[in-house]
This record gives sequence, C-alpha cells and structure tokens, in this order.
Amino acid sequence: MKNLIIASTSTLHGGAYMEYLLPTLTAHFKNCSSLLFIPYARPGGISHDDYTKKVAETFGSINITVKGIHEFDNPVTAVENAEAIFTGGGNTFLLVTQLYKTGVMAAVQKAVNSGIPYLGSSAGSNICGMTMKTTNDMPIIYPPSFDTLALVPFNINPHYLDPIEGSTHMGETRETRIKEFHQFNAQPVLGLREGSWLDVQGDTVILKGNLQGRLFLQGKEPQELETGSDLSWLK
Amino acid sequence: MKNLIIASTSTLHGGAYMEYLLPTLTAHFKNCSSLLFIPYARPGGISHDDYTKKVAETFGSINITVKGIHEFDNPVTAVENAEAIFTGGGNTFLLVTQLYKTGVMAAVQKAVNSGIPYLGSSAGSNICGMTMKTTNDMPIIYPPSFDTLALVPFNINPHYLDPIEGSTHMGETRETRIKEFHQFNAQPVLGLREGSWLDVQGDTVILKGNLQGRLFLQGKEPQELETGSDLSWLK
Repeated sequence: MKNLIIASTSTLHGGAYMEYLLPTLTAHFKNCSSLLFIPYARPGGISHDDYTKKVAETFGSINITVKGIHEFDNPVTAVENAEAIFTGGGNTFLLVTQLYKTGVMAAVQKAVNSGIPYLGSSAGSNICGMTMKTTNDMPIIYPPSFDTLALVPFNINPHYLDPIEGSTHMGETRETRIKEFHQFNAQPVLGLREGSWLDVQGDTVILKGNLQGRLFLQGKEPQELETGSDLSWLK
Repeated sequence: MKNLIIASTSTLHGGAYMEYLLPTLTAHFKNCSSLLFIPYARPGGISHDDYTKKVAETFGSINITVKGIHEFDNPVTAVENAEAIFTGGGNTFLLVTQLYKTGVMAAVQKAVNSGIPYLGSSAGSNICGMTMKTTNDMPIIYPPSFDTLALVPFNINPHYLDPIEGSTHMGETRETRIKEFHQFNAQPVLGLREGSWLDVQGDTVILKGNLQGRLFLQGKEPQELETGSDLSWLK
C-alpha cells in the first residue's frame, strides 16, 4: 500500500530544515532505521555530498541513518534495496533529467507503489504528480520528458504563492500560470502552500498542516480546501 | 544588419499596452507600414485572434497595420514576406513549441539576421537569447528543444525581479535560479527589469530605459549595469 508524505517545502521561514515536519516524519518512518536520499535536485547548486550531509544531520535526530543515492555503484539497485526513500527539493528540471538518465524514475515508481515509505519536499513532491508541468523552477537543463511518478492522479504546485497585494510586478501570477496549464492539460492541480503536505495511504489522500490548499480544476473557478480535506475523489 | 528591440515587458504598472515604448517603436519601425505579429505565446490563454486584435489597436496609433501569423496559410512564407516582425509575450514553452512545430523558428532567425526589424517582449524577448533556459514561465507543454533564436550571444531573463525585502516565502529567488543555471550553462545571463530593453543594431547591443540591468557571468558575482551600457563585449 502506498505510504507517502508530499510536502510543499522542507523549511518554514525562521525554522530549521524539516523542523516543522519532524513529528510527522517520526511516525511516517517508525519502522525504518535507514533512508535512501535522492539529492539530484541540488538546490542552489549544492553538491550531492553536502546535500546528503545536511539531510543526515536532520534524520540523525530521529535515529534514522541516511545514505545518498550517488554513493552507490548502481542507483537502481539502491532503490530496490531501500527501506525508505526521500527526494529533496531544488531544481525539478535537473532532478527529472537525472532520474531518467539513471533509470531511477521507474525504480522509485515501482518501489513506492509496492509500499516503500516515501517523503518528498518541493521538487521531490512535484514529481509525485502526473507531470512536472506545474513546477515553478527555471528550465536550466532539458529533460527527456516532463512525465513524472504519477503517484497521485493530479499535478502538484509546491510553494503555492497567493498574488502579492500591491505588487507592481507585471510577470504572471501563479494562478495565471496554472490557468495557462489548463489550456493544454486536463488533470487537476493542487497548490500546496508552504507548511502544507499531503498524507497518502493507499488511494487515500489527505491535506495536512495549518493552511488551506488551493485546488484548480480545468474550466472551473479555483477553490480553497480546508486542512484535513480528503482529496481521494480527485482524478 | 540586425535591428531589434528586445523588451523586458509589454506593459508597465499603471500604463497601457506598449505605451512606454511607443516613441521607441515609432523610430524602430519608421520604414514599415505593416507588421507580422506572432501571438503563439497566448498570455493567460488568450486566443490568437484576440491577442492580434489588441496589438493591432496599439500599432494602429502609429499607423502600422498588423496581421497575425495564424491568419496565413503558410506561416513560413508569411515570415519570408514580412516587412517587420513582433513576437508578443505569454508562455515561453508554448511559444517555442509552436515556433518549432510550424518551422517559424528557423524562418524568423533567417529574416532577422538579414535585417528585418524585430520587436520582442517578455517571452518574445526570451527567445532572442541562446536558449529559453532562463525563462520564468511554467512548463505547461514540452517543446522539442530549449534552443532559441540566438540573436544575441547570451541568455535573457525578462521581468527580472530583485529579492523581495522581508519576504517569508521560501521558494528560490531569481538570483538563486540563475546561479543554478550557471552550474550547467556557460553563457552570460542578462536580467532585464521591467521598463528596460535592448537596442540591437548589427553586433552592437545597448541597454535602454530608466533602470539598471543585472548581469550574471558564470562563476562571478552579479553586476549592475547602467542604462546606456554597451553590451557588445558579452559572449
């Protein structure tokens, strides 16, 4: 049975890395003593080693040892043998390119569908949707496809940002961008504000955290969803 | 000889469409009575017809007639016969996909290199760079390539946005995104703030408008460029 935490962000303003999620993660990974970390998204260009070290420190505090997928000779085998998997945030284009190049995309999909506990944050959450076509990231590298893990039957927009009141900037708002997405794509898009996450158990998807989510359905007005909402009806 | 205006945006806050650029465009298109408009980027999902109509109203005020490229049976021939070309803003992924699908990418590149006056704004400016890998847009559709017109030997980031002071949002700043770009790409990136544009005459590139530009070179600290700066040394 699928068992995922899909988080909008790793870090809340003023908080430490993963701090706000630690109680949730303790429960989520209660049967795991080790975690395979996928650092491919490299936020700010950080190295795989440095990124993994940072994550290892955080998970050390809840007694879980972390190893980076780049430390294994065969990354696909590393996924197949993993007790739990965490894909960190960064650049989604880079992440997806590496996941395809290494064969890890298909391996993670298979492992998570068979019940291996998964955690994603930001880019690592974006790839849980049908496609990466609702990422906010800059296309710094050309991936072989925009299709992603399809672990939930909709698309995710992490770091969902409401229009900034009084802004004089003329670039598109997030809502306009998602409206453009729906000109060419039919699946729902869930805007996850920072501090929100999805708890996925099998086919049940629940919105968690303190904030509302914002749901975009093709051809309809966006709607606010209360925390605790069951999103299992979405498809 | 190349003759381009590459504008960060079509519209300044509180202004009308292209209002701030009209004196510049009157001079730029002084020998033209007609303009071929490329509406493929469809901002907010607007139709080709509606987008063209809006542009025709603006250019009508400086006695230039506008026809949309979608009104021609053969878009490549339309480009070959054009007196002047304007590519409007919207979604860069959609624009580039359509430019490749129709063969218009190569046709515009050839026409502009042979001296046909060109105007780009936003997405239509982004494609003047080497690649679209520094767009801010959402990847709502998968283009066959990220390579673009390479009319200038660097990349452009339109609607360049400085970090918002006091923001608690944890998504990447524009500067962080461009830093990530430079992990994988060597060419310079020019951040064009809203109200700035480039005037390209042959191989001479001058920054225009009231604001400074922000230049990102691989492995170096970003630098501010005064308006009027000659950027012809960039490569």
